[in-house]
Amino acid sequence: MKVSYINTSYKPQKTDLIATFYVEPAKGISFRGAAEKVAAESSVGTWTTLTTIPKRIEKIKARVFRLNPKNKTIKIAYPIELFEPNSAPQILSSVAGNIFGMKAVKNLRLVDIEFPEKIVRKFKGPQFGIKRIRKIMKIKDRPLLASVPKPKVGYSTSEYGKVAYQIWSGGLDFVKDDENLTNQSFNKFEKRLALLMKIRDKVEKETGERKSYFANITSETEEMKRRAKLVADYGNEYVMIDIVTAGFAALQTMRNYLDDLHLAIHAHRAMHAVFTRNRKHGISMLVLAKLARLIGVDNLHVGTVVGKLVSPKEEVYQLKEFLRSEWYGKKKTFPVSSGGLHPGLLPFIVKFFGNDLVMQIGGGVHGHPRGTYYGAKACREVLEAIQQGISLKQYAKTHEALRLALEKWGFARPR
Amino acid sequence: MKVSYINTSYKPQKTDLIATFYVEPAKGISFRGAAEKVAAESSVGTWTTLTTIPKRIEKIKARVFRLNPKNKTIKIAYPIELFEPNSAPQILSSVAGNIFGMKAVKNLRLVDIEFPEKIVRKFKGPQFGIKRIRKIMKIKDRPLLASVPKPKVGYSTSEYGKVAYQIWSGGLDFVKDDENLTNQSFNKFEKRLALLMKIRDKVEKETGERKSYFANITSETEEMKRRAKLVADYGNEYVMIDIVTAGFAALQTMRNYLDDLHLAIHAHRAMHAVFTRNRKHGISMLVLAKLARLIGVDNLHVGTVVGKLVSPKEEVYQLKEFLRSEWYGKKKTFPVSSGGLHPGLLPFIVKFFGNDLVMQIGGGVHGHPRGTYYGAKACREVLEAIQQGISLKQYAKTHEALRLALEKWGFARPR
Repeated sequence: MKVSYINTSYKPQKTDLIATFYVEPAKGISFRGAAEKVAAESSVGTWTTLTTIPKRIEKIKARVFRLNPKNKTIKIAYPIELFEPNSAPQILSSVAGNIFGMKAVKNLRLVDIEFPEKIVRKFKGPQFGIKRIRKIMKIKDRPLLASVPKPKVGYSTSEYGKVAYQIWSGGLDFVKDDENLTNQSFNKFEKRLALLMKIRDKVEKETGERKSYFANITSETEEMKRRAKLVADYGNEYVMIDIVTAGFAALQTMRNYLDDLHLAIHAHRAMHAVFTRNRKHGISMLVLAKLARLIGVDNLHVGTVVGKLVSPKEEVYQLKEFLRSEWYGKKKTFPVSSGGLHPGLLPFIVKFFGNDLVMQIGGGVHGHPRGTYYGAKACREVLEAIQQGISLKQYAKTHEALRLALEKWGFARPR
Repeated sequence: MKVSYINTSYKPQKTDLIATFYVEPAKGISFRGAAEKVAAESSVGTWTTLTTIPKRIEKIKARVFRLNPKNKTIKIAYPIELFEPNSAPQILSSVAGNIFGMKAVKNLRLVDIEFPEKIVRKFKGPQFGIKRIRKIMKIKDRPLLASVPKPKVGYSTSEYGKVAYQIWSGGLDFVKDDENLTNQSFNKFEKRLALLMKIRDKVEKETGERKSYFANITSETEEMKRRAKLVADYGNEYVMIDIVTAGFAALQTMRNYLDDLHLAIHAHRAMHAVFTRNRKHGISMLVLAKLARLIGVDNLHVGTVVGKLVSPKEEVYQLKEFLRSEWYGKKKTFPVSSGGLHPGLLPFIVKFFGNDLVMQIGGGVHGHPRGTYYGAKACREVLEAIQQGISLKQYAKTHEALRLALEKWGFARPR
């Protein structure tokens, strides 16, 4: 009994999940043949003819309904019955499971997933979203600013606290742990959290501004819960999670758990480039961003266009547009631009992203000739200049922190 | 203040974690330059010179201590201080975090991680391991056999139960859910579990053999815990987890949780090929296997060498050797060979792997001309033939199930 998985006259149902793949067939396999194998293996197929096949198969099988051999893409409709509709791991095991290892394809890339409303509504989405975060932080009309103390690992807790003080009092909104700083022997999570919350309170009093901390709680799930509880007990607003290295099961669990703790999620995407970078094989960053917003992160790293890490302009554009789009009532996620930024680059970033944005500046703050405080100050001065419609060059004449930053890094791209 | 990350006269410490990378520098970047950036970004570096650097940096920074431009590989030693030594997500965020997205590299592959004893001892490893599983299953000296009912998704619970009955009574040891079958509307997890446990008890009585069920509990963590508890309450021995799509935080949590439930973990690797397949970019399957055994899975899919999915012979060899090697007292993990197998291929698989192996035959059981029961029977007959030192051809003369399987699929490779 042969099941066919290609039907170009199929009209996708409202409840179908639609995946777009880039498909390069292996040698000796036709484009159509490879497309069929992708649809089969990611739904109900196996490699040989079976003796018995339940009738349900014809209803729930995946269908390739578009084939574009020119740009090597196909669109597959997956009936919602194939899924456990509130499980991100199960959805991935289906549409992004065994298929990447099939001999029938030379390269395969999951380019996009269009989730049906019925699945989107099964997930929580961001707890706060852009609007609520702005309200909490009391920041109406400018991008939000964060900095990771650098070197990202190596400071003792008290040294880290000193840098954090300078970041906040210099004018930035958030201190952020980096992806690989969690609970090292010389900078323990609990001690760091306690110290930073004390400093936060102090700086809030001194500046009259709201300050917050992206506390990296990444660990196994129970320990993440324990750490999140501590963060909430101190009255902080955010936790940070390395969502790729922690994984989707834990992210979903944490999103559920954080409802009661009233904590927002800053999502770091460390390790994403193992599967997002190659344009021919893997999973796109857009798919990762959709899953992250679906599960419910409030901030998500999306790249810089410029900077030290690869982030193609079209991709970053697509990501920022998606994160802030209407999506069946889901709250909006802040795109985070991070990686090799410095004051001279910020106007470009703001122009590209618009105001609803978190910019994270690490080396470009702490490498300031006069140190972290002035580096932070220079970033705020950039935003002042933008708000007042004055060029950086002009504004730097009367603002020394900015002037020194521009003298070191210019307006050019960093290496 | 410039930190240097290359030191070819450095002697790695006993407590260092050593990572081997394949590095292709980007245009205009030297091999040495790219190597240095990999070590910097995966430990304590940033893209610009910093104003203050704590003294600790010189002690804890990563060091490239081997450079082999010929085969484009480097070895980096990471002092243990860089890690939270019992957190798989943190270790990955360090040595496999931002680096894959760096502009300085065109391609980058994490080929191997040598974990120091101190880190290995921080993780639980498999709860049962090969020896204990054999004892529980009362199978001394032959490979273990499993089958996924196919089509992998589409059966109602009662239809699924009928196939499971045939798998077990035909002679296989395990019924396995497939990676994308968890809790679909027409085949709910709890109902399926209840039915299969009933059938399991019946077949155990009928055959006098031990039978078990790889119950796919993949979901967010709390739901996985709930499902695992149910599985334990029925007296089953195993749960199955899609470890890549669920992620490492949840896997660690589940491994901890399963101590009290006395359940072994069958680890499915669906989605691994998004980052393991490209030989030039991503993370190797060996690294994934090391993490899986470290955290503690009892079975792990490693490929077939033959079959429908890509699995290079050298890679599968390396994996099966690692999973069954001595490793600072960690128990041993069963390699699982799965994907396009049928009776005619099994002697090759057994010869390649040896006896300590789980073979999963899906289509090659259910596609048997007389159906699942005979397909399962044929697989057992293959093992009998091997144990008696008789060729399949010869044994098939007096064993009809085997004869019919060989007539359909032969000894050749499936497509």
